[in-house]
Amino acid sequence: MKLWGGRFSKETAKEVETFSSSIHIDSKMWEADIKTSVAHARMLGDKKIISLDDSERIIHGLQQIKAESQSGEWTFDDGAEDIHGAIEQRLFQLIGIAAKKIHTARSRNDQVATDTRLYLHDKIKVLTQELKSLQKQLVDQAQKHTNSILPGMTHLQHAQPVSLAHHLMAYFWMFQRDVERLMDSLPRILSLPLGSAALAGTGFPIDRQMVCEELQFSKVCENSLDGVSDRDFVIEFLADASIIMMHLSRFCEELILWNTPEFNFVELGDEVTTGSSIMPQKKNPDMAELIRGRVGRVYGALMGALTMMKALPLSYNRDMQEDKEHLFQGLETVLSCVQMMNLMLQKTSWKTENMSKALKADFSNATDLADDLVEKGLSFREAHEVVGHIVQDCISNKIGLEDLSLNTLKKFHVLFDQNTTAKLSHRAVMNARTSEGGTSPTSVEAQIAKAYEKMSLSSVVNNS
Amino acid sequence: MKLWGGRFSKETAKEVETFSSSIHIDSKMWEADIKTSVAHARMLGDKKIISLDDSERIIHGLQQIKAESQSGEWTFDDGAEDIHGAIEQRLFQLIGIAAKKIHTARSRNDQVATDTRLYLHDKIKVLTQELKSLQKQLVDQAQKHTNSILPGMTHLQHAQPVSLAHHLMAYFWMFQRDVERLMDSLPRILSLPLGSAALAGTGFPIDRQMVCEELQFSKVCENSLDGVSDRDFVIEFLADASIIMMHLSRFCEELILWNTPEFNFVELGDEVTTGSSIMPQKKNPDMAELIRGRVGRVYGALMGALTMMKALPLSYNRDMQEDKEHLFQGLETVLSCVQMMNLMLQKTSWKTENMSKALKADFSNATDLADDLVEKGLSFREAHEVVGHIVQDCISNKIGLEDLSLNTLKKFHVLFDQNTTAKLSHRAVMNARTSEGGTSPTSVEAQIAKAYEKMSLSSVVNNS
Amino acid sequence: MKLWGGRFSKETAKEVETFSSSIHIDSKMWEADIKTSVAHARMLGDKKIISLDDSERIIHGLQQIKAESQSGEWTFDDGAEDIHGAIEQRLFQLIGIAAKKIHTARSRNDQVATDTRLYLHDKIKVLTQELKSLQKQLVDQAQKHTNSILPGMTHLQHAQPVSLAHHLMAYFWMFQRDVERLMDSLPRILSLPLGSAALAGTGFPIDRQMVCEELQFSKVCENSLDGVSDRDFVIEFLADASIIMMHLSRFCEELILWNTPEFNFVELGDEVTTGSSIMPQKKNPDMAELIRGRVGRVYGALMGALTMMKALPLSYNRDMQEDKEHLFQGLETVLSCVQMMNLMLQKTSWKTENMSKALKADFSNATDLADDLVEKGLSFREAHEVVGHIVQDCISNKIGLEDLSLNTLKKFHVLFDQNTTAKLSHRAVMNARTSEGGTSPTSVEAQIAKAYEKMSLSSVVNNS
Amino acid sequence: MKLWGGRFSKETAKEVETFSSSIHIDSKMWEADIKTSVAHARMLGDKKIISLDDSERIIHGLQQIKAESQSGEWTFDDGAEDIHGAIEQRLFQLIGIAAKKIHTARSRNDQVATDTRLYLHDKIKVLTQELKSLQKQLVDQAQKHTNSILPGMTHLQHAQPVSLAHHLMAYFWMFQRDVERLMDSLPRILSLPLGSAALAGTGFPIDRQMVCEELQFSKVCENSLDGVSDRDFVIEFLADASIIMMHLSRFCEELILWNTPEFNFVELGDEVTTGSSIMPQKKNPDMAELIRGRVGRVYGALMGALTMMKALPLSYNRDMQEDKEHLFQGLETVLSCVQMMNLMLQKTSWKTENMSKALKADFSNATDLADDLVEKGLSFREAHEVVGHIVQDCISNKIGLEDLSLNTLKKFHVLFDQNTTAKLSHRAVMNARTSEGGTSPTSVEAQIAKAYEKMSLSSVVNNS
Repeated sequence: MKLWGGRFSKETAKEVETFSSSIHIDSKMWEADIKTSVAHARMLGDKKIISLDDSERIIHGLQQIKAESQSGEWTFDDGAEDIHGAIEQRLFQLIGIAAKKIHTARSRNDQVATDTRLYLHDKIKVLTQELKSLQKQLVDQAQKHTNSILPGMTHLQHAQPVSLAHHLMAYFWMFQRDVERLMDSLPRILSLPLGSAALAGTGFPIDRQMVCEELQFSKVCENSLDGVSDRDFVIEFLADASIIMMHLSRFCEELILWNTPEFNFVELGDEVTTGSSIMPQKKNPDMAELIRGRVGRVYGALMGALTMMKALPLSYNRDMQEDKEHLFQGLETVLSCVQMMNLMLQKTSWKTENMSKALKADFSNATDLADDLVEKGLSFREAHEVVGHIVQDCISNKIGLEDLSLNTLKKFHVLFDQNTTAKLSHRAVMNARTSEGGTSPTSVEAQIAKAYEKMSLSSVVNNS
Repeated sequence: MKLWGGRFSKETAKEVETFSSSIHIDSKMWEADIKTSVAHARMLGDKKIISLDDSERIIHGLQQIKAESQSGEWTFDDGAEDIHGAIEQRLFQLIGIAAKKIHTARSRNDQVATDTRLYLHDKIKVLTQELKSLQKQLVDQAQKHTNSILPGMTHLQHAQPVSLAHHLMAYFWMFQRDVERLMDSLPRILSLPLGSAALAGTGFPIDRQMVCEELQFSKVCENSLDGVSDRDFVIEFLADASIIMMHLSRFCEELILWNTPEFNFVELGDEVTTGSSIMPQKKNPDMAELIRGRVGRVYGALMGALTMMKALPLSYNRDMQEDKEHLFQGLETVLSCVQMMNLMLQKTSWKTENMSKALKADFSNATDLADDLVEKGLSFREAHEVVGHIVQDCISNKIGLEDLSLNTLKKFHVLFDQNTTAKLSHRAVMNARTSEGGTSPTSVEAQIAKAYEKMSLSSVVNNS
Repeated sequence: MKLWGGRFSKETAKEVETFSSSIHIDSKMWEADIKTSVAHARMLGDKKIISLDDSERIIHGLQQIKAESQSGEWTFDDGAEDIHGAIEQRLFQLIGIAAKKIHTARSRNDQVATDTRLYLHDKIKVLTQELKSLQKQLVDQAQKHTNSILPGMTHLQHAQPVSLAHHLMAYFWMFQRDVERLMDSLPRILSLPLGSAALAGTGFPIDRQMVCEELQFSKVCENSLDGVSDRDFVIEFLADASIIMMHLSRFCEELILWNTPEFNFVELGDEVTTGSSIMPQKKNPDMAELIRGRVGRVYGALMGALTMMKALPLSYNRDMQEDKEHLFQGLETVLSCVQMMNLMLQKTSWKTENMSKALKADFSNATDLADDLVEKGLSFREAHEVVGHIVQDCISNKIGLEDLSLNTLKKFHVLFDQNTTAKLSHRAVMNARTSEGGTSPTSVEAQIAKAYEKMSLSSVVNNS
Repeated sequence: MKLWGGRFSKETAKEVETFSSSIHIDSKMWEADIKTSVAHARMLGDKKIISLDDSERIIHGLQQIKAESQSGEWTFDDGAEDIHGAIEQRLFQLIGIAAKKIHTARSRNDQVATDTRLYLHDKIKVLTQELKSLQKQLVDQAQKHTNSILPGMTHLQHAQPVSLAHHLMAYFWMFQRDVERLMDSLPRILSLPLGSAALAGTGFPIDRQMVCEELQFSKVCENSLDGVSDRDFVIEFLADASIIMMHLSRFCEELILWNTPEFNFVELGDEVTTGSSIMPQKKNPDMAELIRGRVGRVYGALMGALTMMKALPLSYNRDMQEDKEHLFQGLETVLSCVQMMNLMLQKTSWKTENMSKALKADFSNATDLADDLVEKGLSFREAHEVVGHIVQDCISNKIGLEDLSLNTLKKFHVLFDQNTTAKLSHRAVMNARTSEGGTSPTSVEAQIAKAYEKMSLSSVVNNS
């Protein structure tokens, strides 16, 4: 039975039902739908819009559906148009005609929008926890590696030595921004459309604040037309998710590089790598590649949602049904990728000895040689020029700056002295970068302390 | 049992298997996989790389799997990593140890790429048929409406009258380009990677041309590194599909507009519209909205595939597994949308009387008034200026140009004469546009004839 | 003279200089670059890293360049690689060798990132003001139209009557979210990279907090590797800008529709429309079309920036130079479109009489007829069915529900009474939707009051 | 003076002119515009639609403008709305009132669309030449390196040895597909809109075939509504350009990797690298990074154009003016990047000795060890397992498979023999892959021969 058949003299074509059905997508939201309906029914009873009896009957029925669904006793009918219809059908089977009262002062438009927001909010809570768990692992690992040294890169060229701790912490702060962006989005997600009815509000004396409180939303949507046609929260989330995926893709790119025999900075555990069906020697960083590859899914979902909303007139249009396709694609991808990243890092050992060896004769101490001249009075540009020539000379001789004697140095500039050579070990170079946010162990320790503080603060906020 | 376990001392983590499994995506390709394997096995036997006995056993086993799969006797194991593994397992159950020989001189890399191309080719054939069927309907409907008149629009403003036939035929040519683009892409899709092995070719004396012929590919990939890592065909298809969706979205936008009470140019059948759960009067153009909305899915898939391939070094990388996710999302969406468009048009009646009425006093005959002055010797710019003033005057008086007497016209310019007023009916205006590709019935009839010719040509090509 | 020539034995190819030059893009940031350099120079002097004399000479020189640039006395050399180099050259001309000291404890990497953030922040302030000005106009216009009635749409079908005020206010709240998103992003934009040096921090005893305060940033970047390679703020802004453009595209779509003779709900002023070179009657909503069309620029810039950052290893890579191309494309487009929207609305008159007429016999009062039966005891579904039949009957008779006599109504259901007919005028229907956020004048007045409160609050915040 | 002012009583706002002006974008097309106008004027004269005198005067005037523009005597007025208007103004200055006749039977809509197609076609010719020149360089370099050996990669892991020639040729075939795609698109680009007039064709007895021939288009657009609103060719080109950029980004990623000290497979010339302002030792692969980064510009332009066209009703809408912004952004980026890639390769030396050394103990000969067992009767899976264990053992002992004695091998499987050890040198492994498209020198020589044949064929086609 179609709920809107009155004016129609012909049956909907079978193909139309298949084409427009969304139950395979929206069935994920069954729990949010029940929660929303319970809050709505309670308010309807409380405000005497329906009888208290009916209200209680509906709530009880919905709670039974929830229990049945959790136990697997009941599963939605594949043939239903959407999960909302499937639950209503079941409710009718359970409590009869009273079931139909749940639709009072509510439309599918405001109901679905509310369910989606609620569902997204619950998932963001999970995603945030996973991000924090990943951050925790990063900072815990960093703490052990403030003295592990490796070539810091720009342009994928050795630039200056940095500590592994410093490198790992760079990702910590990326994920910190990700968490903050998600937190910032919550009040916009938790803006309650319910009560907007189809588009214009309702004449029933509903109490939207009461529903808002029960569902723990931040506020009610101020305008019913906007309430049923706002999908900003989907796009904003997908943009946030795209940035998370971008961060993960950078990390994965590095793991893939570091896992080559050329770099050999990392040992990825057997549990998180795979072999080749034709080449028995391979130990492939598949998980890192898959995460990197899946960035496309989330960028694609973002672009899809933006495209969908372009130039739609007010208020609800059926195009908007597609929001869930994009949202869930983004949500599931980012969630599973953050989890996999975390697992992969747990199973990763850093080959710190190889990292350290890689610095030999790599000239990543050249800046400090130049700075030495600057301190001795040369302009930076002049110093830069002198050191450029020394580097070129070393390359010809296949040695590093750290291998130069003071005598040799003095041939390039008279101002070099004993002090200079002491500064040229890579460790000295790293230790010297003591500025706030720099790579010296003391700076990184301060950075780590700040990170732990951030985490403990945010866990307090989270538990409150 | 993992096929590449030898070098590994720890089990793959369960989460890794879930994360990397693609069987729910690639199981669609089971038939292509069997076809490819049959051709490969036949060649291996023919070239004596494996024994003829083994070759026949494998082919027979694969044919049995095909039959079982068609009848539903056998379905792949959800726990398999991918459909290729699932089929190999079943083959092993059926024919024992000989099953393993199918992997000779072949790797998963070239196998999957071949399957995907074969599968895509088969689906493009279906898509092309559906596009042609849509084109056929358009031209058949157009043929009945070369004299049905409606306002032609630019800037969604009435510009000049055109025939409904002309309007429908505009879409015919869009879809014609779509078909041609798909045809152009076929040789690039049907470029055979099989024989590239993992990445470098093989030492077994395989005969790639033989396989190429059996599978009806156009040619073999010339370079094995490219063979296993080329995903251009996925992106090219998704770009073609995006343009098809864009065309459909334009058509749907028009149906939605024309279905408003304000335009009221069209009656969408009950079979392809839906009602509202709260507003009993509504008859919503949901199918048109869903098609328009789903353009986002295909644009998103295109962007996803482009993102995935960005900056991947040679040759195969696991990221590329994601190609099917994007490809199938695009493929299924565009196929179902073309079919739905076709059905929707079948159930659509054009309200030609309303279209005609809409022209009243709409000034879409103004160009012809200007042209009249040009023919009488004014420059176009002068004529334009004069007519601009007449239009402004008519608007004040709430009449149309067709309502003006010759006397009134002459007040604006002395050159107007009896001829002028005869030209001002909208039908005269439409009929006058006799240029090639113009909207006059004679021009449109020629256009329709050209369209029928195109279709009969292409059906010949298709059947050959 | 290249600053890094020491190690190089061949000249850079001319084509390379052209290909990599960014001065035509980044010259916009000249003022931010000077401001940043002044703060850096002051800190260097204060911390005695350079002499106070040099510090003052540099600051004075930079202030002179600023003055020269404002007056047009000095413009950057087109041949310079970027604006930063151009300013340094000029500084050298003005103050000689001391100019080179500005580069102490700073690299191009942290300098450019700082400039970009500063520039973006200043532009967001302007954008926010423009958005607020647009909001102000919307709410001011809304206040005059709480009793102007028009058909509220879902699926572009008449659904229920709403007020023009309510419709305009829907956009108010969209822009309100836009403003809030921009505000939320500020602390992430105002995170100071300066002091990160090339990638690892510096050994000079710099005081980043001092610079942070002078430049009014929120905090210093906690990690130097992240500091030079974080472009999240570009992407986040482009995502926010994409949503703004999407909102504008919806509004423009409506203006274009409303500007058709079929709708005829709006008169766009001559100042903001254009004519046709061939059709003198046309009055085209070009500005609305251009805004709608330019949504593509901003979506494209977002996708471009996301693509650029995918899978880049730490830390700075030259790819990131492209950030400004995308950022400025998005920034200029969104800013000019918001301004144009505002101007277009100023020049728009609403044809409220036509809006009201459009409701005649449109059945947008059908929900209320159904609700009447619900109040009288029917279930919503039953009521819906009854009303569906009445609507169908009216359509056959070409009348509206408001034209039905009580007698006729009673033929469909006995429960209809005098009350029912009173409810059926469209104005009654609108006035009845008194729920929070609904379309009744009282609800909308409350909504408008809330909006004014939001605006005054935010202007207080802004001025503080 | 606005050409369409007649009906308008107020001046266009200054901001509107700025907002809608496109001259800074479309002025690139000045030559195409003149060429189109010349052909149109000639036809108008020939068909006696205007006098032969006027026709000749116009043609002569346009040729003068072309000469003036080439010599720099005349440049367009910045204040003109677009380049078409600027040229018309100049024509009026030169030949007076006759200039206005050029607008007969033509509108801005069909004129601009024609110009854009002509311009794009000319640029594609240049782009194709540049691609071919890049291909030529690749195949020329390949020819010298059929025996240069390096690790072939999958998952960025050493998989099997390949020749540098084979690796370079992989890119040859990618660019070959790019060229073919561009060629396929030409007939769709060269479809002539001129004669469509504003949207509906014209009553003037124009001869579109004559114009088509003069401009060397493939055919006339069959439908005038489609003619003025088809932008498929822009999108198709941007999709083709996106794939080219993707190919370049893969190549650049490899150059960046190979340029690290860890790989050290390549020496990029001083002419195409840059240094660092702070780190004198750096030699950065900036050009490769910029090309890789600019992939975002082209992906963004594609997405922008797709977005722009979504859901636009027929026929021309002002949104479409934005097509050039996206088209030119894509065009210039891809053209300059192909040129830079070519230059960069010219200045690149391959460090083949290092490539060869990289193979030591890398197990990329493991497949052949397994194949040896297969040939001796084991199933591939069993062989794979045995070799897996040998690899693991070698890793523990830090040796390669090529270092194993026959005795040691026999401990793992009795079937190993003298033959086996002979197969284990990397060169033997490479040489063994003799299948069509494989990496053995003989196969690659055949591949190169095929490539030269392709090129000579296409250059014949091109010159004809």
